[in-house]
Amino acid sequence: MSSGVTYPRGFRASGVAAGLKPSGALDLAMLMGDAGTTAAGLFTTNTVVAAPVVLSRTHLASGTARGVLVNSGQANAATGARGEDDALAVLSATAAVLGVGVGELLACSTGVIGEPIHMEPLLAGVPGLVGALDADGGRRFAEAIMTTDSVTKEATADVGPIRVGGAAKGVGMLAPSLATMLAFVTTDARAASADLDALAHERLAPAFEAVTVDGCRSTNDAVLLFASGAAGGPALAPGDDGWAAFASAVGEVGDALASQLIHDGEGVTHVLLIDVAGAADVEDARRAARAVAESPLVKTAAFGENPNPGRIVQALGASGVAFDPADVDVWIGDARVVAHGVIPPAYFRLGELQEAAAAAMRGSEVSLRVSIGHGPGSARVLGGDLSYDYVKINGEYTT
Amino acid sequence: MSSGVTYPRGFRASGVAAGLKPSGALDLAMLMGDAGTTAAGLFTTNTVVAAPVVLSRTHLASGTARGVLVNSGQANAATGARGEDDALAVLSATAAVLGVGVGELLACSTGVIGEPIHMEPLLAGVPGLVGALDADGGRRFAEAIMTTDSVTKEATADVGPIRVGGAAKGVGMLAPSLATMLAFVTTDARAASADLDALAHERLAPAFEAVTVDGCRSTNDAVLLFASGAAGGPALAPGDDGWAAFASAVGEVGDALASQLIHDGEGVTHVLLIDVAGAADVEDARRAARAVAESPLVKTAAFGENPNPGRIVQALGASGVAFDPADVDVWIGDARVVAHGVIPPAYFRLGELQEAAAAAMRGSEVSLRVSIGHGPGSARVLGGDLSYDYVKINGEYTT
Repeated sequence: MSSGVTYPRGFRASGVAAGLKPSGALDLAMLMGDAGTTAAGLFTTNTVVAAPVVLSRTHLASGTARGVLVNSGQANAATGARGEDDALAVLSATAAVLGVGVGELLACSTGVIGEPIHMEPLLAGVPGLVGALDADGGRRFAEAIMTTDSVTKEATADVGPIRVGGAAKGVGMLAPSLATMLAFVTTDARAASADLDALAHERLAPAFEAVTVDGCRSTNDAVLLFASGAAGGPALAPGDDGWAAFASAVGEVGDALASQLIHDGEGVTHVLLIDVAGAADVEDARRAARAVAESPLVKTAAFGENPNPGRIVQALGASGVAFDPADVDVWIGDARVVAHGVIPPAYFRLGELQEAAAAAMRGSEVSLRVSIGHGPGSARVLGGDLSYDYVKINGEYTT
Repeated sequence: MSSGVTYPRGFRASGVAAGLKPSGALDLAMLMGDAGTTAAGLFTTNTVVAAPVVLSRTHLASGTARGVLVNSGQANAATGARGEDDALAVLSATAAVLGVGVGELLACSTGVIGEPIHMEPLLAGVPGLVGALDADGGRRFAEAIMTTDSVTKEATADVGPIRVGGAAKGVGMLAPSLATMLAFVTTDARAASADLDALAHERLAPAFEAVTVDGCRSTNDAVLLFASGAAGGPALAPGDDGWAAFASAVGEVGDALASQLIHDGEGVTHVLLIDVAGAADVEDARRAARAVAESPLVKTAAFGENPNPGRIVQALGASGVAFDPADVDVWIGDARVVAHGVIPPAYFRLGELQEAAAAAMRGSEVSLRVSIGHGPGSARVLGGDLSYDYVKINGEYTT
């Protein structure tokens, strides 16, 4: 059975090696929905945005977008007017080969910032890419969008006759505020662009905003949602019977991709599941959780499998979220390592409490639960530890 | 000649090994000004503050503070009411041995968060600490306040007959918003507490806010400024002839200590001098510079001696500071690697530009200059790279 973005009917995808990456790996990918496909997108909040992001926003606004071309190797960001020209030229050439309007195509790029896109191999690769489009091409697509990813990320969900699928890439520069990776979610439901847009904001944005590898929002990242309508039946819209289940399925695919992203985060050896409760609102809870997830001291402690309640408290206190320190409780796994703002003195004697916390730190997923007050706000953020490999990957790899 | 905090006349200092650190290193320090000494302090902005910070604030407000007791080993933070009792008991015992009022003493602690202070060895060490107070004790003081510091940090300055001296510690959890380390600056000028307080905010806060190792504001950090008046003459006050020169000397000592702190930052192998100009105001400039200094991608690139203009642009764009990307210029050393928002295509061909940037990255100090517009705001932030050793130190050391 076809996987990922081609699991839903009405989509074809492909991936080829066009020679943009020195390694010779797959580096050019395409996803195309049948005529009538609708689309929505979420883009980076970085002030500096790549040329393909600007172009994709414009084409989405035209209401005709139904496909996307993705290149890895060069990000086409900080490339000025030349970068804009290059992005448009690539889409124009692809549209010509496909026999569609250029406004039907979106563009995503990932790779080195600033380096001009390698136009010759890219343009030479387009006919082969288009020719390879296939209803079973999801896996090739998922492979071709990878950069330092070690595994492909795909997910699917079913809701009655409707299918939802997706693929994603991104292992560094993952951070909240969207702006965090490339993710593509498809469905064969029929839905108006405006409803898809609302759905993307409601279900996909929170999924991807909950993951952070290093707090770095990239210049290029995007989440695109396409609906082909190939499952048949009338368009689904909010308020319809079935919309809620459909929306949940889309969210489920988003959550699954986000979880795969963090597990494959650069150098990540332990995933941190940080749940904050008792905050004034969801925004405060997320901010506090993110401060813990992005603290280099918490991240290195996680790498060392070293339970360190003091660093968690320090990160909460530096988060900018207002709370009464006497209201803070922290659990590492099931070990309550901070009670009413105090680390129990027993924790510092070798014994049951310290051992329980240490055992929890040794898992591949580490649960850190925090309560910072009595408010209704809660949030989960997924983070990763900071390892020698993160330093190695990012000290040696040019992005 | 006496160094550091005892370089100015009217101060005695000491440091002893009381057994608070398992290593047996010096771990208890004291600085005492003669009667009539005035004092001011700057403290962490972390929501979670250590017991000694709370106590020191209270004693400073009383206007009689003239000395400080510093212990390393335990931070006495997240220790609740017991921690407050412990901090007061330590100062009370010390005041009794000295024969002074408890309000004349301030307290600083540095070490493991949450662990109750080791009261027995600390109290047992106080008589020896007080007995060792000496006008030549500055160096011992500087040694005893160290935790993972590899070298002592001391500085001095002269302005006519007036001397200024200082000592500091802190190599992780260094970050702007003060809250970043322990620093002690002394002078034998005479000045009212209120004027010292203004001076600390004007000259010492910017010095220490400009350094960041890992963006982590601690629960304990403090900068204390003492004036003994032992140089003779009337009190100096803002507006007096000589105040400006005196203030500059205090700032000079602050800058020197801050620079020593970053050079000894945990795992730092390259110091980043990040100058941002053209911002709307100083606050925007500092925020943008800090975003670059704290970006894990910039920091790992610095460790790899890998000039990476794209990551600098990415960090600026994610800083939250508003600017027009087309106005951005970046220099690595003297190599202009971003011009009007664009990384020159020539940069990506092996050649003079890339080589010049790479050469600049190999220095022990790396200059990154950024212009983000046409505003009057500029700022310098000092950062460090992110190395294997940072991960090692913080994965293994419990704070």
